[in-house]
Amino acid sequence: MNPDMLRSAPVPSVRRMPLYLRFLKQLKSRGRQVVSCTHIAHELGLVNTQVRKDLAMTGIVGRPKVGYDVPALIAAIEGFLGWNNTSDAFIVGAGSLGRALMGYDGFREYGLNILAAFDIDPERVGRPVHGKEVFALERLPDLAERLHVRIGILTVPAKAAQDAANLLVLSGIRAIWNYAPIGLEVPESVIVENMNLSASLAVLSSRLAQTLRTEMGLKTETE
Amino acid sequence: MNPDMLRSAPVPSVRRMPLYLRFLKQLKSRGRQVVSCTHIAHELGLVNTQVRKDLAMTGIVGRPKVGYDVPALIAAIEGFLGWNNTSDAFIVGAGSLGRALMGYDGFREYGLNILAAFDIDPERVGRPVHGKEVFALERLPDLAERLHVRIGILTVPAKAAQDAANLLVLSGIRAIWNYAPIGLEVPESVIVENMNLSASLAVLSSRLAQTLRTEMGLKTETE
Repeated sequence: MNPDMLRSAPVPSVRRMPLYLRFLKQLKSRGRQVVSCTHIAHELGLVNTQVRKDLAMTGIVGRPKVGYDVPALIAAIEGFLGWNNTSDAFIVGAGSLGRALMGYDGFREYGLNILAAFDIDPERVGRPVHGKEVFALERLPDLAERLHVRIGILTVPAKAAQDAANLLVLSGIRAIWNYAPIGLEVPESVIVENMNLSASLAVLSSRLAQTLRTEMGLKTETE
Repeated sequence: MNPDMLRSAPVPSVRRMPLYLRFLKQLKSRGRQVVSCTHIAHELGLVNTQVRKDLAMTGIVGRPKVGYDVPALIAAIEGFLGWNNTSDAFIVGAGSLGRALMGYDGFREYGLNILAAFDIDPERVGRPVHGKEVFALERLPDLAERLHVRIGILTVPAKAAQDAANLLVLSGIRAIWNYAPIGLEVPESVIVENMNLSASLAVLSSRLAQTLRTEMGLKTETE
C-alpha cells in the first residue's frame, strides 16, 4: 500500500474525487483507454498541477507523455474513497428527511447502500418506506453489530440528535453523516460529516433577501 | 432600514442564524420574554462576542444589562434571512433526489414552499409527486414569470445541470440551490448555493476507509 494513503488528504481534494470519477467513467464508456492530466484538467476547468496532486493521493502514478490508464485510475479513486465495496448504512430518524433519503437511489452510484431505518415513533416502526424496513430504535445496537454496519445517517430533529449520535457510537458505528442541524460530540475515533440543509438555505435566502432589498432601495431612489 | 443589512454578512455568521432561530423559538414557546447574549452563547456552545456580532447583523440592538426582546429578535433574524415571508420555489429535475425533496416538508420551517417540479422526461410529466405537479421543462419560463418564483432548486444529473441553470436564469430565477454535483456558470446577479451530496459523502467515506485501513495495518503489525 502507498504510505501516502495513510496520511490525511486535504478536504477540497477529496471533494473533487467524485468529479474525476464521473468524468473518467464517461471516458471509459466511450472506449478511451488512456487520459492525460492536462486533458482532465481542461475538461473539468481545473488547474493541471492540482489535478496531478489530487490523483497522486489515490496512489496512482501516470506515465510521462502517456498519461493514466483510465480503468486503473477509476479503480484507484474508488479504492481511495472506499466506494469499491458497497458500504451498508442505517438511517436514524424516519421522518420526512429520512424517508426522502430512503427513496433516493442516487447513493448507490457512490457505493452507499441504505439497509434500513430506525425510529422511536411506534407509528413509523414496522411500516416499510420505499421497500426498506423501519425498526424500533432500541434494535439499532443489535442489528448494527450483526450486520457489521459502520455508517449511520442521522436525520432526527436537532433536539434528538446528540442522544441518537450516542446510540450510534455505542452500536459500533464509525462514521456519522449528520443531516441534523446541530453539531455532535462524539469520540475522536468516530467520523462526523455535517450536511446542514438549513445552514445552506440560510446562506441562499439571506443573499437573495439582501439582493432584493438593495434593488428595491435603488428603485425607490431613482423614482 | 439598518444600513448594515446592505453589507454582505460573513457566511459562517449566516450559517449560524438557523441555530439561533431554533433556540429562540424554544425560549418563546416556554414564555420567555428576554434573553441575554451570554445565555444564548452558553446554551449553544458559542463565544459571547461572536453571538453579539452575529445578532447585530440583523439590525437588532440588545439593551445593556437586560438583553434582547425574544419575539423582536426572532422577527429580526427571520427578516434578515428572508424567512418571514414564505418563498416559493420550483424544483428542476423530478428524478429520485428531486422527488425526495418534494416530499420533505421540513423546508416549510425555513419559509421555503416548493410549488412544483419540472422535468424533460414525458414519463414523469403530469404525474404529481407528494401532491405537487410535475410540468414539462419548457413551461418553466412562463410559470416562473406568472407566479413570480425567484428560487430554483436544481436536482438534475451533472451533465444536464448547466443547460437547466441557463433556463432558470432566462426564466428570471434569482437564486439557485444547486444539488447537481457540478459547478454552474451564471451571471453575477444570480446567486448559487451548492449542496453537493456526493462531495460530502466522499469526505465521509474516504476518512472511514482510511481509518479502517490504518486499523487493519496496525492489527497486522501486532499479530
